[in-house]
Amino acid sequence: MGELHIDLGALGRNLELVRARVGPSCVAAPVVKANAYGCGLAAVAGAFSKMGARDFFVATLMEALELRTIIDKDARIYMLGGFEADNGAYYEQERISPVLNTIEDICAYRELARGGDQRLPAAIHVDTGMKRLGLTGDDRRAFDDLDLNDSIDVRVVMSHFASADEAHSDTNARQNAAFKTWFDVFGDVPKSLANSSGIFRSNTYHYDMVRPGMCLYGLNPTSEVDNQMHNVVSLNVPILQVQTIKKGQSCGYNETYRFDRESVIATVALGYADGFLRSASNNGALYWKGMRCPIRGRVSMDTTILDVSHIPENQKPQAGEMMEVLGKHQSADDLASDMNTIGYEVLTSLGRRHQRTYKD
Amino acid sequence: MGELHIDLGALGRNLELVRARVGPSCVAAPVVKANAYGCGLAAVAGAFSKMGARDFFVATLMEALELRTIIDKDARIYMLGGFEADNGAYYEQERISPVLNTIEDICAYRELARGGDQRLPAAIHVDTGMKRLGLTGDDRRAFDDLDLNDSIDVRVVMSHFASADEAHSDTNARQNAAFKTWFDVFGDVPKSLANSSGIFRSNTYHYDMVRPGMCLYGLNPTSEVDNQMHNVVSLNVPILQVQTIKKGQSCGYNETYRFDRESVIATVALGYADGFLRSASNNGALYWKGMRCPIRGRVSMDTTILDVSHIPENQKPQAGEMMEVLGKHQSADDLASDMNTIGYEVLTSLGRRHQRTYKD
Repeated sequence: MGELHIDLGALGRNLELVRARVGPSCVAAPVVKANAYGCGLAAVAGAFSKMGARDFFVATLMEALELRTIIDKDARIYMLGGFEADNGAYYEQERISPVLNTIEDICAYRELARGGDQRLPAAIHVDTGMKRLGLTGDDRRAFDDLDLNDSIDVRVVMSHFASADEAHSDTNARQNAAFKTWFDVFGDVPKSLANSSGIFRSNTYHYDMVRPGMCLYGLNPTSEVDNQMHNVVSLNVPILQVQTIKKGQSCGYNETYRFDRESVIATVALGYADGFLRSASNNGALYWKGMRCPIRGRVSMDTTILDVSHIPENQKPQAGEMMEVLGKHQSADDLASDMNTIGYEVLTSLGRRHQRTYKD
Repeated sequence: MGELHIDLGALGRNLELVRARVGPSCVAAPVVKANAYGCGLAAVAGAFSKMGARDFFVATLMEALELRTIIDKDARIYMLGGFEADNGAYYEQERISPVLNTIEDICAYRELARGGDQRLPAAIHVDTGMKRLGLTGDDRRAFDDLDLNDSIDVRVVMSHFASADEAHSDTNARQNAAFKTWFDVFGDVPKSLANSSGIFRSNTYHYDMVRPGMCLYGLNPTSEVDNQMHNVVSLNVPILQVQTIKKGQSCGYNETYRFDRESVIATVALGYADGFLRSASNNGALYWKGMRCPIRGRVSMDTTILDVSHIPENQKPQAGEMMEVLGKHQSADDLASDMNTIGYEVLTSLGRRHQRTYKD
């Protein structure tokens, strides 16, 4: 069986790096959506909670409800997916703060609050150029006309960067300027703008709260320089079979790779049903004792075939031994580049069939 | 919340189509690995079991153990990933039949059997050209020398097609011929060669047992002709926000799509953390009342942005309404084509964050 290992110590050190960067006057609120980026919500949120984190971000109501069973009632859960009026009772009972993205969201949540006997907590999201979620410029007048004082406790006003991972984009500065235009509307409500990349891009983006996600899980928030985050995730998978393949033969579905010499191949228990994206077919590699072993042919649902011809005879891998997918020699960012995607997708995809083990 | 709906009636009709095709003398053994191709193992295996299925295929030991809690002790579970000697006791206790891929697999399993008081069930896999798993030509002599009579009850000898989905490939015939060369080794042990595509490709590939997978879940086993299978999976996701975007503005991460006219966009609660592959960025579409709405910009972790400019004003979608990802207007095969992959990956990826509902 594959071994997906999560280093909670490294995860904690990454949160410390963020805290050191933003200083004591700014709250670092971990983003733990998508099952904590595939690392397992219970262990990850538990670890951050022990480190004193009191504000968390998730995407969906199911995630918020699961998180509430892990952290105590006073810790704040912000749900990015907005307010689902049909499920209003859950927000109220479990003290989930929706991130209100639209005037309709705000009005529906206000109605819920007015039906009860106390103000309900929320964040408000303003769009500054991402054009995905959040109040638009046109919503401003409508928002000014709303009276929320008796109903909604607006704890944070936030926006989100579109291109914080790009070192030379002027979009960040433009979004930051757009964010400031909302400040007179919200007065002294705490402000939050930066995601992982934004945190390490410039101190001017920190404001009162930052929302680190990917960097906590070891991905590189500023890819133009070496990664300063600690590696959190390692994955090793067992070899099922090693065999010799003759010159001219092919391997895998649809015979997409043909060997131009006699070769040795190893088939491992890792496929796209494990979240190892099929786009790695004939691309990318796994590692054996630090040596890169290229993928040959198509990634199957449950298996992938590696070329181990170049491994010295006395070190050749055997069935039952483990190969490295992620770890010391290959990061999620490295693998993502071979898969034509980003480390986020690699992490959130992995671990559906692998059991996670944790180290403190 | 998204609604992932599985039509168990359609699933059953697909098994009936396979049974009708192979006739009563051939066993149709459903492949239910990868959580029944993302459809949910418990419901799917339960449905097939009710229809009299007594032989099932899974990939991993965890899947086999889970399946054993769903179907009764006498039903046969074949585990494609081979024999894990370290976990031998599970195979014995839970009557899991490993698909033995190598001489080493066979010897290790024989050892387990000889330590007990009865023969243990297994399948044996011979390679006929896929070069992924299975005994090779070179293993033949070694296999002949093994004495398994007192230890292993070989219930089926199997091989696997590499290119059964290709109508004009000569690989199928070549593999079939290679398969036959093993028959004198195995005598009257039941034979199995065909996967979904092989089943519908030619009756000569049926032998004693077929292993339908993808076609049961509604994917097209012979893509050069219209799909005869019934659609099993539908997925609808809620709209979180609808907004107008100005000419020249862009949306989503890294501003990869710029609008050349004023447009209306809808952001839905569906992202790559839901298994909606990021390769659909600026590609592919969701459907609104049967109208295709193209994806604009990058697929995010939790959201995707659709262009709904062309929807007539009196039918424009509103926040809270649902858009079709899979269903009447878009199959998993259709979506896969836009994602540059295959329907298998679409199905096995979906449903990590969506709750499944079932209809009989």
